[in-house]
Amino acid sequence: MKTATQVIDCDIHHAFKDHRQYGAYLRRHWKGPIPGGGAGVYASPIGVHRKDAYSDAGESAAADPKLLTEFLMEPYDMAYGILTGSSYDISVHPNADFAAAVAAAYNDHLLEEWLPYNPRFKGSMTVAVQDPQLAVREIDRIAPHPDIVQLVLASAARLPYGHRYYHPIYEAAERHGLPVAIHPGSEGSGISGAPTAAGYVSNYMQWHTSLSQNFMAHLVSLVCEGVFERFPKLKFVLVEGGVAWLPHLMWRMDKNYKALRSTTPWLKKMPSRYIREHCYLTTQPIEEPDNAKHLQQIFDMIDAENILLFSSDFPHWDFDDPFMILKGISGEMKEKIMYRNAKELYSLS
Amino acid sequence: MKTATQVIDCDIHHAFKDHRQYGAYLRRHWKGPIPGGGAGVYASPIGVHRKDAYSDAGESAAADPKLLTEFLMEPYDMAYGILTGSSYDISVHPNADFAAAVAAAYNDHLLEEWLPYNPRFKGSMTVAVQDPQLAVREIDRIAPHPDIVQLVLASAARLPYGHRYYHPIYEAAERHGLPVAIHPGSEGSGISGAPTAAGYVSNYMQWHTSLSQNFMAHLVSLVCEGVFERFPKLKFVLVEGGVAWLPHLMWRMDKNYKALRSTTPWLKKMPSRYIREHCYLTTQPIEEPDNAKHLQQIFDMIDAENILLFSSDFPHWDFDDPFMILKGISGEMKEKIMYRNAKELYSLS
Repeated sequence: MKTATQVIDCDIHHAFKDHRQYGAYLRRHWKGPIPGGGAGVYASPIGVHRKDAYSDAGESAAADPKLLTEFLMEPYDMAYGILTGSSYDISVHPNADFAAAVAAAYNDHLLEEWLPYNPRFKGSMTVAVQDPQLAVREIDRIAPHPDIVQLVLASAARLPYGHRYYHPIYEAAERHGLPVAIHPGSEGSGISGAPTAAGYVSNYMQWHTSLSQNFMAHLVSLVCEGVFERFPKLKFVLVEGGVAWLPHLMWRMDKNYKALRSTTPWLKKMPSRYIREHCYLTTQPIEEPDNAKHLQQIFDMIDAENILLFSSDFPHWDFDDPFMILKGISGEMKEKIMYRNAKELYSLS
Repeated sequence: MKTATQVIDCDIHHAFKDHRQYGAYLRRHWKGPIPGGGAGVYASPIGVHRKDAYSDAGESAAADPKLLTEFLMEPYDMAYGILTGSSYDISVHPNADFAAAVAAAYNDHLLEEWLPYNPRFKGSMTVAVQDPQLAVREIDRIAPHPDIVQLVLASAARLPYGHRYYHPIYEAAERHGLPVAIHPGSEGSGISGAPTAAGYVSNYMQWHTSLSQNFMAHLVSLVCEGVFERFPKLKFVLVEGGVAWLPHLMWRMDKNYKALRSTTPWLKKMPSRYIREHCYLTTQPIEEPDNAKHLQQIFDMIDAENILLFSSDFPHWDFDDPFMILKGISGEMKEKIMYRNAKELYSLS
């Protein structure tokens, strides 16, 4: 099988083999419990990984560069795969120093064991946002590596991402030319507060369905706080947050801006224009209406051709297969979503 | 001026004249401070009321049945107006007994001063949800009045509205044939928690833009917890929550249901079908994309013809004028949204 176009996958979850390997990367005296990677009390009833994402010997294909190459990069002929890891919960851990140490362990593991193995792997470094000054130091340490193409943060947060608290991190990311990605998985755990504005939902299905709301809140905050005026070269990537909510958000924010712009005097354009110029959304989990035409209409509303990036979310249960996704579109739009938008955003050759 | 169809306005904010009048309706020893009605720390920079919603003598047209009739019911030739009040914050007040007393004051004022004045007024009673048993008693006291057509609750909440905690309230509402409406305004105040899943946003514009997220969380919770299987005649009305986010929510929930239905064994239909059969959305604040065709496509995606109800939100600043709204649609769809859907839902003659 071949896709009609080359492919860059913008969300591949490489992993530690086990907690022992994670611990070996932890610095100095940090020998505490390692965050378990994800949803906390909102456990998936069908597990997190696909059943076919393991070798015959039972090894996770996400925890071994060779297996990941064999399971994903080669069969789908991926031009590049953006490794996003699974360290989402460090930014909602109560201990800032421990979180920074876990972030460093994640980054060193990425640099030492993953990026050298396959030149098609590109890395998303992470930081703990609890101490922005430590985060900047970590960005300065890791970002210069040529295979680091992005900074990934949890979408779970104590404060929406537009707040000034985070601006030193954006200054560093912009200075190093790194897009900032946010990724769901730890909403409702650690110090992040309830996973919805209405409080705690009851189970994984409700939690998963509601994850997009965190992305909406961050996007409203980023635009309205003027982050993209203050950091004009900064790009944001909304990974695994869904897509079809964006028309609503842009229209509502633009409409409100017409009446309430006195509260955001630093904005010089309509809010939706900042989104179109600074933000990208990855495809998985793409919405699947019964009427395929409806998704194409949504794509038209959001200028999908220029702001979507393909992602598989390998090895998670809701993995989107590049051969199956986006059947309803073709031509230049498909090529841009599957390949060219990511190639340009991440400056890949 | 005339609208092309008769009109029922499903969100008119009648009000107390002042805190003194409110206090006079408070029962017994409750003489504490009266909730201020709304956004708390998220104050609108342009005020809450329209400047033209006052008489020459400076009286609020929302606080006097005669003025409201002159300012809204007559000029727009409203067939009916559903009074929704402004008591949204009682359900996020920490004191359950005080909140129940405020709810009773609101209901008595509605029954004594508003509904007898103009037969075109129909009333939304309210309850404090902090003590569901007290709430049921209040429903039993007020709902039998023939001009009470709805129960309105705050969309701000400590717990999403699907939780079993609320089920006695739904049992009573269903028994009395009252649709349950939820209305924004007190998100982020009282005991409601942060107004977004990502925490506290900075100002009114961000807060207002994010209000839809509470509606999404409640809707996911209501459907997934099986509320509409347990109470098959119950209807929910999402007032002032926006509209264009609904396709995303239905598609994402349906897609997740296909994989995760083991967590909701009580559901017998696709999640989106419960929404189509049990839920209504009011129009204001309707999204206004630059390309009017996009809104019509959204209407097609959500079966707007059967689930939307016109609302003006009088006297708030973002009031939608029945003469100006929905220019792009006409014929039966327009008549149903402006009039017939509400007439049937509220059993109006």
